[in-house]
Amino acid sequence: MSSDGEYARILAQNHRFVEAFDRSALTAAPLRSIAILTCMDARIDVEDALGLRVGDAHIVRNAGGLASTDAIRSLVVSQQLLGTREIVVIAHTRCGLHGADEAALRQRVQSSTGTATAMGFGAFDDLDAMVREQVEILVAESALLDVPIHGLVYEVETGRLRAVE
Amino acid sequence: MSSDGEYARILAQNHRFVEAFDRSALTAAPLRSIAILTCMDARIDVEDALGLRVGDAHIVRNAGGLASTDAIRSLVVSQQLLGTREIVVIAHTRCGLHGADEAALRQRVQSSTGTATAMGFGAFDDLDAMVREQVEILVAESALLDVPIHGLVYEVETGRLRAVE
Repeated sequence: MSSDGEYARILAQNHRFVEAFDRSALTAAPLRSIAILTCMDARIDVEDALGLRVGDAHIVRNAGGLASTDAIRSLVVSQQLLGTREIVVIAHTRCGLHGADEAALRQRVQSSTGTATAMGFGAFDDLDAMVREQVEILVAESALLDVPIHGLVYEVETGRLRAVE
Repeated sequence: MSSDGEYARILAQNHRFVEAFDRSALTAAPLRSIAILTCMDARIDVEDALGLRVGDAHIVRNAGGLASTDAIRSLVVSQQLLGTREIVVIAHTRCGLHGADEAALRQRVQSSTGTATAMGFGAFDDLDAMVREQVEILVAESALLDVPIHGLVYEVETGRLRAVE
């Protein structure tokens, strides 16, 4: 599929969406006062998997669902400007970063772009430990409010959410 | 709504989702080879607004839809590990960061958490200029492949996507 075709398709699909649009009354503050931090993975439809409707939650996504500096910035904004009071961190099975080789990835960037990079990509070896670590980072973050923070794994094979203890 | 109630509700909703789950054949690589970078805003259902199905695209989200260091990490992973070859950046109207006062926000963090912070939150004054800036950051990022990058504004009042030239 050509790139131009993909972009044009998105704009055409949006025309149809606008015709049926019924969400103009939604306010910025999430109705369920919750923020989700999860992976960018294409197989995760966050609203569907969690039973959320548009307007319910902030959804922060990055490669892996890491509690990065930027994710923390987003969560602080979510709490301070828009009143969320709960955080759910969701990693998932079969993540591209699970077991990824950071050095090989840097080499791949260099060979395909010509750019030598020292970038860290967030590769991890133990899925549950990774989720616990992200939760711990958020719990320890002093710029965040003291709110409930839950860690979950989403199984892309079954759709099931599993709590990480 | 209590926090415990919200978390329990998500897990209960997920049980129903699992019973109807039919996505186990999806692969990690996005079917449409596209990555979306947009805001965490609760009013944006990315799949609905863009006519995407689960499996089609990587979706990176943070406060504002900024081309942050972490968003760039995610996009590099998206390209190198999972083959995306197009990027769409989408900011939106009525964003909480539009016209936000960074100093007042830092003050609010301090008064509510007791933590003095030098954090930058990504406030902006001109929506279209902000979108252009994010696109320019990504175009200039040498660790990213030379792929089409589009800038759009999502109008939360109408659902319409508008190209930023």
